[in-house]
Amino acid sequence: MAATNAFSPVLLVVLLGLLVGHGLGQSEEPRLIDLTWTIEEGMNVYPVHAEYRFTVVYRGEQPGGYYLESNNIFMAEHTGTHLDAPAHFAEGAWRLDQIPLGHLTGPGVVVDVREKIGDNPDYAITQQDLEDWEREYGRIPDDCILMLRTGWGEWYWEQGVSAYLGTDTKDVTKIHFPGLHPGGAQWLVDNRKVKMVGIDCMGADTGDASAKTAPAHQILLPNNVLILENVAHLDEMPPTGSTVYAMPIKIGQGSGAPARVFAIVDNRTSAAGPTTPNFILAVTSVIMIILQSL
Amino acid sequence: MAATNAFSPVLLVVLLGLLVGHGLGQSEEPRLIDLTWTIEEGMNVYPVHAEYRFTVVYRGEQPGGYYLESNNIFMAEHTGTHLDAPAHFAEGAWRLDQIPLGHLTGPGVVVDVREKIGDNPDYAITQQDLEDWEREYGRIPDDCILMLRTGWGEWYWEQGVSAYLGTDTKDVTKIHFPGLHPGGAQWLVDNRKVKMVGIDCMGADTGDASAKTAPAHQILLPNNVLILENVAHLDEMPPTGSTVYAMPIKIGQGSGAPARVFAIVDNRTSAAGPTTPNFILAVTSVIMIILQSL
Repeated sequence: MAATNAFSPVLLVVLLGLLVGHGLGQSEEPRLIDLTWTIEEGMNVYPVHAEYRFTVVYRGEQPGGYYLESNNIFMAEHTGTHLDAPAHFAEGAWRLDQIPLGHLTGPGVVVDVREKIGDNPDYAITQQDLEDWEREYGRIPDDCILMLRTGWGEWYWEQGVSAYLGTDTKDVTKIHFPGLHPGGAQWLVDNRKVKMVGIDCMGADTGDASAKTAPAHQILLPNNVLILENVAHLDEMPPTGSTVYAMPIKIGQGSGAPARVFAIVDNRTSAAGPTTPNFILAVTSVIMIILQSL
Repeated sequence: MAATNAFSPVLLVVLLGLLVGHGLGQSEEPRLIDLTWTIEEGMNVYPVHAEYRFTVVYRGEQPGGYYLESNNIFMAEHTGTHLDAPAHFAEGAWRLDQIPLGHLTGPGVVVDVREKIGDNPDYAITQQDLEDWEREYGRIPDDCILMLRTGWGEWYWEQGVSAYLGTDTKDVTKIHFPGLHPGGAQWLVDNRKVKMVGIDCMGADTGDASAKTAPAHQILLPNNVLILENVAHLDEMPPTGSTVYAMPIKIGQGSGAPARVFAIVDNRTSAAGPTTPNFILAVTSVIMIILQSL
């Protein structure tokens, strides 16, 4: 079978490439993106909720001769970057500690609606806006965590309540921020299969609607589409190709909870798909064999 | 080059195998393990810390005609399954919100010391115990999250404070649970590179030592080796081959925080290594080419 020597060097190169590609795939560091705001006194909270309180209990040298810090915290469950459990608006539905862990992670998607909002602080994100995104990036993937980027987080969070909520009063009829239109929420529930809708402002409903009956909440939550509010740093997240983890502390009977939310972008989750170099090399190899066999 | 036909079918099968393997690799569901206890009133807390409190604010039909649940929570930072930040015992060291996100995840390792503990509820896990583990499983990997399985969680957590802490008084001189010996802690800091030490009881120090100067805390934390306490369900985690995420809520100036802790076991993190089927197929292909070229 000496004639096989004619093309075995080519295949050797290809297959050695596979081995090297395998090694590279292992060592490539994933990129982590923190999508969580720091919890601190004076932070933005929805007007009907209690203000966050932080109390220093120990901070300094102890009688035993060692240094110690320790603090107490008090908060409403819906404080900072947090998750709404279905039971927040749906009697008998999952409370926070009943949500399966697997429901808290999925492929990440960012729908950027900043340009559509213009100067309307009560802008409601429509089915059309979601379909426009799909025309550019393809169908919203099953089981995804769908992030709505309004720009409110990156523009206003640090500036405090009157920028972020539109008022520094506790009057909910005066709050303004963008949110998901009930029609958009209904379309998602009926036509797509998403695990969670996140947003970079105070609520999944517009400020307007949240002060009345919060219709988007009432559509999403009873269908076990979780809601993530006050998501941070969506500007750092790619439109597709990440895996999001939205991990709340496990409050028994909780209607929601503050969460650590982060995205991972790596060679497995990138838009180009997992282990792509191996895939391309394998396809190339098959084509080469076919061509050389002719 | 018709002679190449003699072995191209074999290679075609191998390379088609690569393609199929690629497809399978994509669809394989990772296994998620929740390592977090539910936070609820009456749970075990370290005697000097405040008791957890949960207050229902809304639970029922609202005047607007919709159902609403919402609650307030009060707790010490070191409640339930939680992370200790370096600043807990080291002045000027990282507080919770200063810990880089990447320091909160790493390869998971479980060192099972249940048989060594025997009937000694103040058993201190030694350098020898860690070296015994290495003889069986290989060197403790760099950047790992090292879990110490004492059995306390699986045996006693649900039974309340007198089983889990050894006393139902608030007298810290009466508490008993296993922990890490200061010598073991020093050996880890000097000779291995771990990101975090977790344990399935109330503290990284033995009950005994925690009531005095908490020496293991004083060795680990100033060296940015984080501590994870009251870790749940270590019985579900493999000794090696997982990736652990220990994700605390982001408390500004925190000395620690309750966390959602979980492990992922998938085809990438499994002990057999990432994309192994592709790797084996590639090696097989190279060997075949060499054999057939002879």
